[in-house]
Amino acid sequence: MTSDLTWGRPRPERADAARNRQVLLDTARTLLAEGGPGLLTMDLLAERSGLGKGTVFRRFGSRAGIFQALLDDSERDLQREVLSGPPPLGPGAPPADRLLAYGIARIRFLARNQAVARATLDGRQEPGARRPLSAIHIRVLLREAGLTGVDVDVLAVQLTHALDGPMMLQVFGEHAPDDPPPTARLEQGWRYLVERLVGPVGDP
Amino acid sequence: MTSDLTWGRPRPERADAARNRQVLLDTARTLLAEGGPGLLTMDLLAERSGLGKGTVFRRFGSRAGIFQALLDDSERDLQREVLSGPPPLGPGAPPADRLLAYGIARIRFLARNQAVARATLDGRQEPGARRPLSAIHIRVLLREAGLTGVDVDVLAVQLTHALDGPMMLQVFGEHAPDDPPPTARLEQGWRYLVERLVGPVGDP
Repeated sequence: MTSDLTWGRPRPERADAARNRQVLLDTARTLLAEGGPGLLTMDLLAERSGLGKGTVFRRFGSRAGIFQALLDDSERDLQREVLSGPPPLGPGAPPADRLLAYGIARIRFLARNQAVARATLDGRQEPGARRPLSAIHIRVLLREAGLTGVDVDVLAVQLTHALDGPMMLQVFGEHAPDDPPPTARLEQGWRYLVERLVGPVGDP
Repeated sequence: MTSDLTWGRPRPERADAARNRQVLLDTARTLLAEGGPGLLTMDLLAERSGLGKGTVFRRFGSRAGIFQALLDDSERDLQREVLSGPPPLGPGAPPADRLLAYGIARIRFLARNQAVARATLDGRQEPGARRPLSAIHIRVLLREAGLTGVDVDVLAVQLTHALDGPMMLQVFGEHAPDDPPPTARLEQGWRYLVERLVGPVGDP
């Protein structure tokens, strides 16, 4: 491990770091829009952002790290809606309604960000390391629902994985032209899980 | 890519290949028993099996490949029981009973092979690439159960991921000393999913 002190230049100001991060994410999104994930390499990102390869490498570590940073950045909007947006996605609705709303929002989020989400899987994957929003939110709602006869912590892990990126990407990937749209199939599937496992849901 | 013809020696006989494979798997299991996954490297496996690094590399590709081969080899017994063993794990019981029995058998299989399963996750992970037995078996049983009001193919993918290696390893990994044994929690969780999503189950 290299200590921070051994980096070749002084640690940048926090404001600079935040600005660099935003420049890199914006440039990455531009490259994605221009040519898809295949175009997005560490070298080209450095060149186009004008920020140098060292900065890109220190910020993201690997190519998969760029995609993970893009996905995390986009997920912040979803997180804000869950924490303080209107119900049923935000607080104020019964747990089963909020679970259904969260699943639908997450399915649509992953559908919009499919190429990026797929590219994050190229790197090393730690089980459970990368879905803190789903894992925590689902666990809290299940506890709130007051289910009996089931270990809600295990159920929360099971449901998190049943709603997880790899699961959805598999359904998107196996999609045949004659099938109904995969988001609709996934949303219907999630509704079935919530209604059967947690309880009846009001209007979506 | 290198063509087969450019390998340094002629392609071995099929019987030789099968024998080499068995020698490598047996040696790998011995190393695991001696020192755990950390001891199992390509180099030591070559040295201890007396088969040369080229053979080990061609056979497994990477260190994660060794662990995947070990897991696949162990899974063959489970597969045999599912295809032709006594019910309810084997044929001849109602679909819900067979689903419950399969989940319990898979949870116990992963619990026994936990260190190996965890080590397979170190490599690149393709969504859905590595659980053909679960994916196919769960889909067939759900179709047989004749569920209505749900897309059984989506439900099969969701349940496969809810029973998947990474999910279980997360529960094993988060296990606290005061908790009930993780296999019991997982088995109870799987029973809850099957009974709620598929239908009542007879004696396990």
